[in-house]
Amino acid sequence: MASERPAGSGEIPFPDQPTTDYGPIDAAIDDAGAAGFVAVGGRFDPDLRYLTRFEGPERGYAFVRVPGRSVLCAPDGYVRAAEAGVDGVVAADRVGDPAGERAVAVLDRERGGAAAGDVVLVPPAIPHDAAVYLERAGYELRSTTAVADARLDKSDAEVDAVDAVQRAATAGVREAERLLAAAEIDGDGLRLAGRPLTAERLRRATNAELASHGVADAGNTVVAAGPEAGDGGQNGPDRRIRAGDPVVVAVAPRGPYGYHGAVARTVVVDSDGGWERRAYVAAESALDAALAEIEAGASASAVGREAHAELAAFGFDPGRSGTQDGPAGPGHGVGLSRRERPFLDTDAELSAGSVVAVEPRVTDPDRGTVRLSALVVVTADGHERLGDGDPSFTPRA
Amino acid sequence: MASERPAGSGEIPFPDQPTTDYGPIDAAIDDAGAAGFVAVGGRFDPDLRYLTRFEGPERGYAFVRVPGRSVLCAPDGYVRAAEAGVDGVVAADRVGDPAGERAVAVLDRERGGAAAGDVVLVPPAIPHDAAVYLERAGYELRSTTAVADARLDKSDAEVDAVDAVQRAATAGVREAERLLAAAEIDGDGLRLAGRPLTAERLRRATNAELASHGVADAGNTVVAAGPEAGDGGQNGPDRRIRAGDPVVVAVAPRGPYGYHGAVARTVVVDSDGGWERRAYVAAESALDAALAEIEAGASASAVGREAHAELAAFGFDPGRSGTQDGPAGPGHGVGLSRRERPFLDTDAELSAGSVVAVEPRVTDPDRGTVRLSALVVVTADGHERLGDGDPSFTPRA
Repeated sequence: MASERPAGSGEIPFPDQPTTDYGPIDAAIDDAGAAGFVAVGGRFDPDLRYLTRFEGPERGYAFVRVPGRSVLCAPDGYVRAAEAGVDGVVAADRVGDPAGERAVAVLDRERGGAAAGDVVLVPPAIPHDAAVYLERAGYELRSTTAVADARLDKSDAEVDAVDAVQRAATAGVREAERLLAAAEIDGDGLRLAGRPLTAERLRRATNAELASHGVADAGNTVVAAGPEAGDGGQNGPDRRIRAGDPVVVAVAPRGPYGYHGAVARTVVVDSDGGWERRAYVAAESALDAALAEIEAGASASAVGREAHAELAAFGFDPGRSGTQDGPAGPGHGVGLSRRERPFLDTDAELSAGSVVAVEPRVTDPDRGTVRLSALVVVTADGHERLGDGDPSFTPRA
Repeated sequence: MASERPAGSGEIPFPDQPTTDYGPIDAAIDDAGAAGFVAVGGRFDPDLRYLTRFEGPERGYAFVRVPGRSVLCAPDGYVRAAEAGVDGVVAADRVGDPAGERAVAVLDRERGGAAAGDVVLVPPAIPHDAAVYLERAGYELRSTTAVADARLDKSDAEVDAVDAVQRAATAGVREAERLLAAAEIDGDGLRLAGRPLTAERLRRATNAELASHGVADAGNTVVAAGPEAGDGGQNGPDRRIRAGDPVVVAVAPRGPYGYHGAVARTVVVDSDGGWERRAYVAAESALDAALAEIEAGASASAVGREAHAELAAFGFDPGRSGTQDGPAGPGHGVGLSRRERPFLDTDAELSAGSVVAVEPRVTDPDRGTVRLSALVVVTADGHERLGDGDPSFTPRA
């Protein structure tokens, strides 16, 4: 059991903690003539993570920004840990105090009390009870996308954090590929070390490899072999992998400082070169076509359309391409959220520093799904690939 | 690298999916004369998980209950997967449609349109934008704790799900213990297989073991050696483990169907039998004393007080016992949330079926922390332990 994986030894450099640019939030406060900005949420809330750079226990956190100053209401016992990321930390009086109530107390203190009708900016999905606390205290709420806007274009340190988790993500998918390469074919499906090679076994091995590299599967690991996985995108735990199955292994782990990676690959053991091979070539081609469109100023939807046009040119129905993961289409931004702006089915204009996963896929209800992906950072005149390694249709040892 | 762990082979039985008792929600709807109940949240929202038994991709989900009927607004491509847990599934028209807007559409359809002032029950922390959609559509919101109430006492299937993840949690902590037992002592700290044994290495090995058993560390794994870990409860990644360090390894993984486990243990390599040994004996004694108080009808705070009194009897300051994890004190409920009711520092009355983690701890700012835990289900006349295995002060191979 003590077979600790050598891979966990830290070949992937641990990145530096990114810092936060509060400029866009202060600008939004200024534009609105607001008293400040308040966010409330749990420890995995990506906006709060961006604003505070703090990962504490499972609680409601409140973050208050007044121009030039950030205050986090942290749980008792986490004050020192929280101080790293913000200007001020206020300990909760009690764990049970609602985060909205704490936010009001901080705002009142920073402002010397609420003037009737003072505007406070909040993210659209602030918890309703927190909003009600703020409104009862005399603040007028106005919703802002300033934090999502600020998160859109990544700093170099943020890109480094994504790159590190992307390398770990690739290692996780490679582990699944290795098990498939090592498996023996028998009548009912693949076997490895005397036991059936099931979807759950592949999923566990992938997730263990991710963990050994210091990243969390975050509930995002998909193992999808054959047609049963079309809807919902997962096989049941006991599904045996079979020769000829297109086996999608897709991960989107959460790594240091909360940033995500995104790798989707498809391998086929002992393919007879039929549908799955053609679908793979089409997906490769769609990936290349989409990547060729990416540069600052390009339309996000044009990138997506290019991928779909290429799939159609190979005779596949791009309208079915989104079945596994909703109709969001061929790609999306990646950062503190697994899926965030820019979405490649919207009219957004790509900007330098955005990190984008391009994920063409082909689904056939009788055969299964083929998915590939690339993760890139948008640059002024193109893109740079993040992570390492290339996919292979045939699993490699 | 292909050193797949035999432990992942499924020794821990995969439990059956629990079902949901909508009775308390229907009763709350009836009591309030309400048109229905609406919950909105992400895929890891424990209330939504309870209500839908659905784990989909990262989206805003809306769940609508009208008396006798449950409807989930699921993303396109997840309709079949979502149908397992609810009576009706409505596909989102577009991924981008706000969940609150979808909830209004379902409610209107089920009711034949909103009557002015129709009451809708919602959880207190429903996202503000969803609340605003409902209010603009003519519904009057009233907040309810019916879901949290329904989640309090677990069914047998829910207890089985917690028990399964608790066994995996124990295996994860045992892996860290094995590495510590196998390590060599040198002047600067422990070494294993020629490399320094750091906190991060222990954390990764623990998380990989959890993953190999099919559960996710969920960001909850703590490795805390020596006094530096007192505030925030974690060592930095490069902290080497040393002889004599009290090493806390605590996990609270998320397993099948979203249920959690909770294991906290403390081991010391080559202890000289000083403070850490006395603290360990005190924590063991506090654990026993607290467990002896647990039965249906007992006061939650009495259980907590018993643990604190025992620590004080051993000369330790129970007022410092909460430093690592906030002042919540010596225990809390465990279920779809890592920490949920009943909290052992409140006046709640324990009820049969509640799952409770008792977690006494002793912290000394110069020496570190000693934590132990037990996870039990409350019964009419006592409790039953969940998971397996006993802790050991000295790490075992």
